[in-house]
Amino acid sequence: MGQVIASATTSLDGFIARPDHGIDELFGWFDAGDVVVENHGDLPPFRLTEESAAYWLAWRESLGALVVGRELFDLTDGWGGKHPLGVPYVLLTHRPVRDSAALGSPDLVVMHEGVLEAVAAAQEIAGDKVVGVAAGTIASQVHAAGLLDAVNVDLVPVFLGEGRPYFTAQAGGPVPLGDPTSVVPSRGVTHLSFPVPR
Amino acid sequence: MGQVIASATTSLDGFIARPDHGIDELFGWFDAGDVVVENHGDLPPFRLTEESAAYWLAWRESLGALVVGRELFDLTDGWGGKHPLGVPYVLLTHRPVRDSAALGSPDLVVMHEGVLEAVAAAQEIAGDKVVGVAAGTIASQVHAAGLLDAVNVDLVPVFLGEGRPYFTAQAGGPVPLGDPTSVVPSRGVTHLSFPVPR
Repeated sequence: MGQVIASATTSLDGFIARPDHGIDELFGWFDAGDVVVENHGDLPPFRLTEESAAYWLAWRESLGALVVGRELFDLTDGWGGKHPLGVPYVLLTHRPVRDSAALGSPDLVVMHEGVLEAVAAAQEIAGDKVVGVAAGTIASQVHAAGLLDAVNVDLVPVFLGEGRPYFTAQAGGPVPLGDPTSVVPSRGVTHLSFPVPR
Repeated sequence: MGQVIASATTSLDGFIARPDHGIDELFGWFDAGDVVVENHGDLPPFRLTEESAAYWLAWRESLGALVVGRELFDLTDGWGGKHPLGVPYVLLTHRPVRDSAALGSPDLVVMHEGVLEAVAAAQEIAGDKVVGVAAGTIASQVHAAGLLDAVNVDLVPVFLGEGRPYFTAQAGGPVPLGDPTSVVPSRGVTHLSFPVPR
């Protein structure tokens, strides 16, 4: 079975967005270089540095499926049914999904049960490949359930002071990690990957 | 004139301590290796990895003076008059200091004025060497005053979820930094140094 890995761009104080969901201070690295990386779906291409492009393409290549939460799904209208990372995505939600352009997409699986079931569904799709989980409540729930294998941090050199945390109270307390297995400095970001101790 | 540099050990969510001031999750790297590093004053020696020892000794050697806040001063009783880093230290406080073992130490300068005056006093002592400022309110005030040249982060792989922040609201909003000029992975910590854009 493949690994379950959380991944997010964060500030030096661990925020993935401002309180109002703004990400201007954090996402400069997606436009910091000359390597054009096309996205699936409607998202325009990234322009990454060589270091970030190599990191990003390896991450994308490793993925077999994603588990996503309702908040990001609603903010993006379900990515119109095509996730930018080009893999099937399992939406964990307790409310019915209506009126979304994503409904009917072969890439979308809607799960109304718990996080265990959502991860299991994603793992079945992913096979030996990685299941990626988004920051915020999903990553925290997956960690609390003991299912998280690693945490990727695209660390941006800014202290925001306030915002939406990578790991919330739903993680059930501190989240201790191992030393990074990978440290990739780039322009506007340092890519770090931390194992979850078992 | 020497640079003014903030330095602190932080979690991945930017906390320098738990809400109760506890630092157990953060300070393991001071005891993670075989290199014995003696401290000035009463603090027992550190046992650092080779990487952390090289980093730490270079930091200590660069220092000419420190600016410290009242909270840490009171927690340590003014380090008994000898700061562990072995340099003179300027205490910025608005309340009188009484009954401290540190009073009368030739290393201690007590300033009752603002942060500008405290940094100026420390710079006069430090000459061309670095003035170090502690995390929390002091680093934030120094940044808000436009006096901070760099921010060192000894990044420990744990999300605490809550705690005492490196930069507080006194920083006056987000603190954007440049890409790290130094990235030193070690055991239990990654040492990062970020310039403050001017």
